[in-house]
Amino acid sequence: MDDNKSEVPLTGITVKKEEDFSEWYTELLNKAELADIRYNVKGFIVYREWATITIRKMFKKTEDLLEKKGHLPLTMPSLIPESNFLLEAQHVEGFAPEVFWVTEAGSSGKLPERLALRPTSETALYKMYALWLRSYKDLPFKRYLSCQVWRYEGKMTRPFFRGREFHWIESHNVFATMEDAMKQVKEDMDSTYQILQDECCIPIIFFQRPEWDKFAGAVHTYAADALMGSGKVLQLPSTHLLGQNFAKPFQVKFVDNDGEEKYAYQTCYGPAQSRNYGAMIAYLGDDKGLVLPFDLAPVQIVIVPIFFKGKEKLVLDKASEVFKQLEEKYVVKIDDRDESVGSKFYYWELRGVPIRIEIGPKDIQKKQFVVVKRHDGQKFIIKETELVKRIDEIAQNYTNEIKKKSLVDFESQIELVYEKDSAIQAINNGKIVACGFCSIDFDGEKCAEVVEKEIGAFVRGKRVDEEKHEFANCLICGKPAGCTVYIARAY
Amino acid sequence: MDDNKSEVPLTGITVKKEEDFSEWYTELLNKAELADIRYNVKGFIVYREWATITIRKMFKKTEDLLEKKGHLPLTMPSLIPESNFLLEAQHVEGFAPEVFWVTEAGSSGKLPERLALRPTSETALYKMYALWLRSYKDLPFKRYLSCQVWRYEGKMTRPFFRGREFHWIESHNVFATMEDAMKQVKEDMDSTYQILQDECCIPIIFFQRPEWDKFAGAVHTYAADALMGSGKVLQLPSTHLLGQNFAKPFQVKFVDNDGEEKYAYQTCYGPAQSRNYGAMIAYLGDDKGLVLPFDLAPVQIVIVPIFFKGKEKLVLDKASEVFKQLEEKYVVKIDDRDESVGSKFYYWELRGVPIRIEIGPKDIQKKQFVVVKRHDGQKFIIKETELVKRIDEIAQNYTNEIKKKSLVDFESQIELVYEKDSAIQAINNGKIVACGFCSIDFDGEKCAEVVEKEIGAFVRGKRVDEEKHEFANCLICGKPAGCTVYIARAY
Repeated sequence: MDDNKSEVPLTGITVKKEEDFSEWYTELLNKAELADIRYNVKGFIVYREWATITIRKMFKKTEDLLEKKGHLPLTMPSLIPESNFLLEAQHVEGFAPEVFWVTEAGSSGKLPERLALRPTSETALYKMYALWLRSYKDLPFKRYLSCQVWRYEGKMTRPFFRGREFHWIESHNVFATMEDAMKQVKEDMDSTYQILQDECCIPIIFFQRPEWDKFAGAVHTYAADALMGSGKVLQLPSTHLLGQNFAKPFQVKFVDNDGEEKYAYQTCYGPAQSRNYGAMIAYLGDDKGLVLPFDLAPVQIVIVPIFFKGKEKLVLDKASEVFKQLEEKYVVKIDDRDESVGSKFYYWELRGVPIRIEIGPKDIQKKQFVVVKRHDGQKFIIKETELVKRIDEIAQNYTNEIKKKSLVDFESQIELVYEKDSAIQAINNGKIVACGFCSIDFDGEKCAEVVEKEIGAFVRGKRVDEEKHEFANCLICGKPAGCTVYIARAY
Repeated sequence: MDDNKSEVPLTGITVKKEEDFSEWYTELLNKAELADIRYNVKGFIVYREWATITIRKMFKKTEDLLEKKGHLPLTMPSLIPESNFLLEAQHVEGFAPEVFWVTEAGSSGKLPERLALRPTSETALYKMYALWLRSYKDLPFKRYLSCQVWRYEGKMTRPFFRGREFHWIESHNVFATMEDAMKQVKEDMDSTYQILQDECCIPIIFFQRPEWDKFAGAVHTYAADALMGSGKVLQLPSTHLLGQNFAKPFQVKFVDNDGEEKYAYQTCYGPAQSRNYGAMIAYLGDDKGLVLPFDLAPVQIVIVPIFFKGKEKLVLDKASEVFKQLEEKYVVKIDDRDESVGSKFYYWELRGVPIRIEIGPKDIQKKQFVVVKRHDGQKFIIKETELVKRIDEIAQNYTNEIKKKSLVDFESQIELVYEKDSAIQAINNGKIVACGFCSIDFDGEKCAEVVEKEIGAFVRGKRVDEEKHEFANCLICGKPAGCTVYIARAY
């Protein structure tokens, strides 16, 4: 076998994910060349080719879904005048510490007004909505932006999870009634399950966030927490019922069918962001590297020719033949680089390519190929005549197989808790705690601070789907429980 | 006929394009709702839904073409430290007057270093290239970004043509030799013809720009001028041979196969930008509104049901039936709004929807439909049984028909000129002037200033394809001609 390259095959990743998640993640980013943190502005990273391609595919799926549900795209300027920004008091209070300001331009120096790099687009967009919307016939008005936002994060940044510039999709919607707005919030939650669970294989659950943890300016915030394993959760997309909180200062009004001018009701929603990608690769990845859902893989099938002296042409010709049979339906690549077979295997496993087809002279003689699935390492010997049919089957089942493993049952993660001490124990055992809580209105904020300080975890809020558990008292203050909340450690 | 709405049908546009282009363009933008200039930061505009959808389609076609030619996508931060920016002297000199600066962030106030909102990405990207590229095996290295850039324009802005924030695709490529780099420049010019002429139906020609008009930092700039009619040209994509001008200050080096470390050769290219969209709608549009190539239309076929009292259901049912036959292949819309038929026709003509299908009760009785093509107003009566086949034909020919009208022959636009006075006359007659010129090196800059002042036009440079015309002397200074140049008025 002509496979005696001097080079030692690269191993996937040297640290086990279970033993040191942080180090595992850093190695994954570097070895699979997903992100580069060496860009010379703090908190700003480069997304490399492999990550960019998958993120685009995720965004495209999200855009298609939004458009199917009646949203249309818009393109907004990324600079927001400080005066817009100041119109909604809670909003400015929430975002002011995180804003980057453009203050100078060209040789002419200082600008007459500071311009914010948008941290989110409400205060840019709703100025325009006030100009565009006239009548109840214009409603519902459902739009979205695919753009980036900037936030001067104080917390530690981590590629794809938290950065000072990140890419997202934000949808901004206007309705004639509060009921219609609330229906949109429900539609958004359905969309999130479609995108996160169905496409990205990440298990999520929606919570209504406590007052002290909602979007600045919202009436209510409904946020998806991803269950990342070991009881730790990660906030992914959230949808916000804005009511008339922005409509009033921004003058988003319409003439209703009774002839009266009224303030509209609004919602906003961030279905996609680079963080979804971070969550997906962190959650699905294993000690060999990336595991990707079939549709989101930049390369779906890699063909590795196994060269023996004198048989190179035979093998390459067969590889091209197979390539041609598959390239119309799939993104296929032949790896004919001058590297050892072993390091090619590692290389593509590290990058999460779902299917590998190995072609050597013996295989050709036997009219068969070895085919390997990335996510479970299963190996098949497939007859040449059946190759396309079998690849179709493997491709079709691939994402569902990942889901079967990854979509853990929320119920199995939780522990019902009646005392602070058992809460501490449950959290330390990697559980999510369900307990009685006085209130998720501002009244409950003090108890939430105790949870943070003494239990080392966060009140994630009230479950949005049906609540099965009932408690008599607040876990912290002992007052009668106003609701059941969930407490978890969080990224 | 139940078509007695009180409303007066909207006319397309009230100003004729030939009589007042500027006013025509402004009306087109407003009435077809393509852009909104009322956003409250000077020079920053909102791209509305209809424009955003077409621009995305243009960008997607460009990205697909680049990927087919071996480029991969990357995502870069949009802020560039001032220190990067200062590394290439000509580049900083060219761009400094146009840069927006981020100087403050959050509550902590002043940043330690000013950060530029990228006016173009060389100085961000090449810092990373220096880290990524090691060996001749890494070359050619072809990448691209789809992003927006910001430029503090002094010139008058016009939506899609010139703004202070615009969206584009920039490709940045690295090679082992100058020859390979020059081959890339040629490939870029081919790509530009494919995108601009084949997809957007805009006639272009490439010029090597004079020294005083090249990209800041480039060895040479090759720019596509669109022929906009009446002898006026508009600069569209350009590709730049950078040589080692950036490789040296940014340390973009590689170890060649002879073991020696060498500076690489680079090119950069901006194949797509919002301006392509502006040029396309301005050039192809007519007095009824937009004309769009078939693939780029947000809606390709509109079905207009013609209601008569008591027959509404019959007509709507037939409309849905036709919709279902076409929706898999095309973007189809049924316009069942409560508006007059006339204003619906105007509405969709204004927005450039390529095909209109009219369905009324009489048509249903006769088992036929009226089908109208937008770009030439041609009307067909098509049998129900042949509808899909005929629509396929119309769709397939639509863009080619536009091209036949729009792709004027460059040769027919030019006038050979030997004296300044005849140049003035030719320019006033809406011609492009071909003449002898002393030099497009810096030696010729003074003569170019005379051209600008006295002829009221610009030296566009040397033709990149074969030059057929030869002149003895420079039109301005009378010295022996170093080359033939083209002079034209420009947007």
